[in-house]
Amino acid sequence: EIELRSDTFTLPTPAMLEAAANAPLGDDVYGEDPTVAKLERLAANLLGKAAGCLMPSGTMANLAALLAHCPRGGKAIVGHESDLYVYEAGGASMCGGIVYEPLANLPDGTISLEDIAEACTVDRTDPQIAPPALVSLETPQNRCGGLPLQLDYLAEVAQLTRSHGVALHLDGARIFNASVALGITPAEIAFYADTVQICLSKGLCAPIGSVLVGDRAIIAQARRMRKMLGGGMRQAGMIAACGIIALTEMTGRLAEDHEKAARLARGLARLPGVRLNPGPPITNMVFFRVRDERYTTRSFIAAARRRGVRVEELGHGRIRAVTHAGVSTDAVDRAIGVFADLLAPTGR
Amino acid sequence: EIELRSDTFTLPTPAMLEAAANAPLGDDVYGEDPTVAKLERLAANLLGKAAGCLMPSGTMANLAALLAHCPRGGKAIVGHESDLYVYEAGGASMCGGIVYEPLANLPDGTISLEDIAEACTVDRTDPQIAPPALVSLETPQNRCGGLPLQLDYLAEVAQLTRSHGVALHLDGARIFNASVALGITPAEIAFYADTVQICLSKGLCAPIGSVLVGDRAIIAQARRMRKMLGGGMRQAGMIAACGIIALTEMTGRLAEDHEKAARLARGLARLPGVRLNPGPPITNMVFFRVRDERYTTRSFIAAARRRGVRVEELGHGRIRAVTHAGVSTDAVDRAIGVFADLLAPTGR
Amino acid sequence: EIELRSDTFTLPTPAMLEAAANAPLGDDVYGEDPTVAKLERLAANLLGKAAGCLMPSGTMANLAALLAHCPRGGKAIVGHESDLYVYEAGGASMCGGIVYEPLANLPDGTISLEDIAEACTVDRTDPQIAPPALVSLETPQNRCGGLPLQLDYLAEVAQLTRSHGVALHLDGARIFNASVALGITPAEIAFYADTVQICLSKGLCAPIGSVLVGDRAIIAQARRMRKMLGGGMRQAGMIAACGIIALTEMTGRLAEDHEKAARLARGLARLPGVRLNPGPPITNMVFFRVRDERYTTRSFIAAARRRGVRVEELGHGRIRAVTHAGVSTDAVDRAIGVFADLLAPTGR
Amino acid sequence: EIELRSDTFTLPTPAMLEAAANAPLGDDVYGEDPTVAKLERLAANLLGKAAGCLMPSGTMANLAALLAHCPRGGKAIVGHESDLYVYEAGGASMCGGIVYEPLANLPDGTISLEDIAEACTVDRTDPQIAPPALVSLETPQNRCGGLPLQLDYLAEVAQLTRSHGVALHLDGARIFNASVALGITPAEIAFYADTVQICLSKGLCAPIGSVLVGDRAIIAQARRMRKMLGGGMRQAGMIAACGIIALTEMTGRLAEDHEKAARLARGLARLPGVRLNPGPPITNMVFFRVRDERYTTRSFIAAARRRGVRVEELGHGRIRAVTHAGVSTDAVDRAIGVFADLLAPTGR
Ligand SMILES: [Ca+2]
Ligand SMILES: [Ca+2]
Ligand SMILES: [Ca+2]
Ligand SMILES: [Ca+2]
Ligand SMILES: [Ca+2]
Ligand SMILES: [Ca+2]
Repeated sequence: EIELRSDTFTLPTPAMLEAAANAPLGDDVYGEDPTVAKLERLAANLLGKAAGCLMPSGTMANLAALLAHCPRGGKAIVGHESDLYVYEAGGASMCGGIVYEPLANLPDGTISLEDIAEACTVDRTDPQIAPPALVSLETPQNRCGGLPLQLDYLAEVAQLTRSHGVALHLDGARIFNASVALGITPAEIAFYADTVQICLSKGLCAPIGSVLVGDRAIIAQARRMRKMLGGGMRQAGMIAACGIIALTEMTGRLAEDHEKAARLARGLARLPGVRLNPGPPITNMVFFRVRDERYTTRSFIAAARRRGVRVEELGHGRIRAVTHAGVSTDAVDRAIGVFADLLAPTGR
Repeated sequence: EIELRSDTFTLPTPAMLEAAANAPLGDDVYGEDPTVAKLERLAANLLGKAAGCLMPSGTMANLAALLAHCPRGGKAIVGHESDLYVYEAGGASMCGGIVYEPLANLPDGTISLEDIAEACTVDRTDPQIAPPALVSLETPQNRCGGLPLQLDYLAEVAQLTRSHGVALHLDGARIFNASVALGITPAEIAFYADTVQICLSKGLCAPIGSVLVGDRAIIAQARRMRKMLGGGMRQAGMIAACGIIALTEMTGRLAEDHEKAARLARGLARLPGVRLNPGPPITNMVFFRVRDERYTTRSFIAAARRRGVRVEELGHGRIRAVTHAGVSTDAVDRAIGVFADLLAPTGR
Repeated sequence: EIELRSDTFTLPTPAMLEAAANAPLGDDVYGEDPTVAKLERLAANLLGKAAGCLMPSGTMANLAALLAHCPRGGKAIVGHESDLYVYEAGGASMCGGIVYEPLANLPDGTISLEDIAEACTVDRTDPQIAPPALVSLETPQNRCGGLPLQLDYLAEVAQLTRSHGVALHLDGARIFNASVALGITPAEIAFYADTVQICLSKGLCAPIGSVLVGDRAIIAQARRMRKMLGGGMRQAGMIAACGIIALTEMTGRLAEDHEKAARLARGLARLPGVRLNPGPPITNMVFFRVRDERYTTRSFIAAARRRGVRVEELGHGRIRAVTHAGVSTDAVDRAIGVFADLLAPTGR
Repeated sequence: EIELRSDTFTLPTPAMLEAAANAPLGDDVYGEDPTVAKLERLAANLLGKAAGCLMPSGTMANLAALLAHCPRGGKAIVGHESDLYVYEAGGASMCGGIVYEPLANLPDGTISLEDIAEACTVDRTDPQIAPPALVSLETPQNRCGGLPLQLDYLAEVAQLTRSHGVALHLDGARIFNASVALGITPAEIAFYADTVQICLSKGLCAPIGSVLVGDRAIIAQARRMRKMLGGGMRQAGMIAACGIIALTEMTGRLAEDHEKAARLARGLARLPGVRLNPGPPITNMVFFRVRDERYTTRSFIAAARRRGVRVEELGHGRIRAVTHAGVSTDAVDRAIGVFADLLAPTGR
């Protein structure tokens, strides 16, 4: 089976399993797991921040960040196509009484500066108005084709948020993909944000975990929130050990995933009825639509599945195929072959 | 001073004051105030619903409705220009853990049926997704120029929400203005909604209060929420008595307000630099922009104020002027005169 | 009918109705109702605080105070027999994510200083612990027999809370009864608390409303919360006018209520099977139990009701009878007569 | 160093590390990790329930259970000494708007049936009252000396809760200790509860994780809550593999921990100034007080630490020492020796 649904399907590497078996452990709820501490320092350093906190998931890392930044009744300004808004069950409203203010994501994953400025410009003395407390961006942005945000855009947003006294959070679940695609370090990207969430279990292949990084005070707050949410894990060094491998040995390999995505996209673009959307991939995600009267989106996905290729619908009738360590170049070619068969005049 | 900032500035009439002084009273927290009960029945009947509940404000009526309809973590689909979303402090997220999903209001105050359908069409078994629980519409819609929604639009939305098992709430703070403008009864409008909020203290001149109407079960729930929020008032018959006058004697007079708004709009449209936006009023609100290099929006409002005419900014640099019982036709003409002076070539 | 269920059943006086009819009014949501402003200043002055905010109910005044004082996830330490904990629907948890920590009320309405100290003494750096943010006391305490707290007790609690950086809120719904009973001014009582809630619609006979008083900053916060909860009322001067009469003309009469309660208690204490609990009244509430094999508490209340005397069960099988302006001395005597009949050897 | 602070300090066994390295894995957020599925079935079977859900911590398992059982504004009746109330940061109020109603734990860890009955007996139609939705018990109860609840007590509580339509949750973090101590199966204990939380990382030595078990519907709800809280973990099979060893190979060894605790208690009881409280241990926890004028509780703990023995304060000035797989009988004897030295007439 060729698994293209998500890079979350990556499996831990042998080096990770060995690291997990040999890591010094402690009770991290008491703050005494040395391997967790090492991972948190490592992640913070890589992102150029003072502190980090291991979380069981990116969802919790994002949620803890919003809870740490936003008071009850404050507004979190988010992209309407951001994973944080679409796929994280409204946790900030439920757990924190925070109001989401979704603004339109443009096709490149940005939110217009004008929209952000307007959302930030409110009369904070007016009790009718939920005051904005945070802007969240995502890079690369999953539902916008995995496109990475440009540094100058981040700089402009940061200037805007700072001038309004509003925090800037970055959902950098795949920030290393953005880093590779843009040819800059993750710290250069993270520089503009107050907090950044990075995911260890996607392209980097760790089995579990995300790290939230930021300054000491905000991470201390997020750590409180982690406990309250139930994300304090005992001998978490076992998964942190895998995360250390992820950050030290696995970021380099993401370029391969991008090449495989480009290869897949080229193959797909040649097929009848396939249209890439928003266009050729820049990171490891290929989004496309299929226009073929023999298929609905759903039936096309099912037909591919019967032929051993797994992809999924990801918003607005688009199909997403994600490359990762579990998908070889050969598998990419075989997947193209399956899609070609399905769309051939005599296919299905 | 000519008060055009809002129809909330209306004062109770002599008949109301007399009714308040003579109303039979009881303790409404015990459910024993006969005047409150009478008002609630009256409002319910006028709107064609089974039950009503008096609230200290429209904000609480809307909030109690959302809390009654939406579970914790459910989504309330609202217009991004609706008063409920813009001016009610995010109460549903804060008090109920409800996620607002603001959708774009079109210039006529509607939300496109496609957008509503898309927001309602989610995989309810997917724990990533906050499930939609309610759609809220507003008629006439304040921030869309006070335009009333058309019955066929309401019918289409109701069909959609019903097919998705989602409730439909109507913020009908000024539903009697919509009724007068469309030449239909308020019950014809309310027919499509599961709950409707009506405000007694705007054009209808009661000093305090809104009523939420709906079926018995939902109003019982909303009544619980009212107590929790602190909206249970003791001898509330004193304000209910004014509300009864509002509903029985004051709805007819709204046509005058609409005429005065039209008159004001005609006067404004002739002035240099004034542009009505979205266009001529249909109810009692005139929205306009001023383009005159001598003024910002803010300084224009301040200049009018110094001349005894009060208007306010109401979103996106527009100025709003609202007619009501406290503004005579003569006052409208004087206001036009003030605006004309300010915008005259030699003005300011 | 003799209404002894609660002093909330009091009706507005003719002077109040006249004041309501003649009060200068404005839109209080814009902060422009002069009568509301006058009431808020008056209440603040009477309680020795800098600012006040009119609320539609004591429930909202208490809730807004807790929301203003306590962050999300903070603890509100309350008496387990306090009205705020027992009868206000858990609003602080629901609207604010605040954790109630109910501590045992002693029979005199106090909470032991040891218990308060222990609840306040936590490791605030430990993310396992919800940090205490507020202590709330009630005086006189309804469910503890309407007993007023002593000044030295308040002073000791205030010293304790201050030393722990925890706010002190006082539910003074009936603070004027406490003031009369103790022969001191309300300001002397309020002195120790950061915020105090006073109710206008109980013994003071106003139809609607409570006022929350405190320093400017906390009242500004509470005012924000009031708007969010839906407690912003338009021409609220109409009820504020009654509140002004309540505070200026009605506090003196509470001594009569206390005398009537004492008279009622003396009458009851002589009846077979009646036991006052906790003992003779100090304010306007008589609590008693009936031990008579012919009755349950419920059936005794129903029997009294059939004879025109209304009382209610108020916790732990006790019956409460409250005196107020609507209950004359003669009515007290008639009520005693009814109870005597019911409990006479041949009664029922 | 002899680690007696908690059994959470246990480390994974070699068998666990090997199982983790060899477990078949999948993406559990997609529900496709076979090892997680196997653990969840195993836990459910062991506890006699239909379904289970792996959680990153006991805190989340308890929180998800409360969120699944209790509506917004409902009451969770809990022991005032329960870990869930004392150490879990008030999560249910913050994330769910749930009101905690702590009732007094008796020295044996029970809550009196009378108290539970009274808390459950409310007028559910009264909007003043937060309606009870759940009772939570804990066995063995940490802060009550690790004493297990008796089956007949559980049966009586279950009958009570069922008769009131209230759910019964059991915090069985150490249920296997209770099972061993009482000589019955965990399923016999779990039988009475609607949901049970079991912890894998305490005496059972797994590095991470708790499992919540119950019927299919409630576990489906809890699974939704897990996602929202951020407890969905990707290749969670790696920790589930350890949990499988915990449940299949490690429960038998808990008897040793109990013997070591008894040995430690006997040694302590002989020392001057030491008083066991509540008494001799029944499971793996020894609670004691030290009365020696040379020490405060805090300085005694510090002195022991300098001598290589770690214990901690656990409420009301008591010291807790917990035995587990990381503490040999010899270590117990050495710890007794250290305590003896410290308390010897010439010690310190
Ligand atoms: Ca993975
Ligand atoms: Ca995400
Ligand atoms: Ca008005
Ligand atoms: Ca009254
Ligand atoms: Ca009260
Ligand atoms: Ca462990």
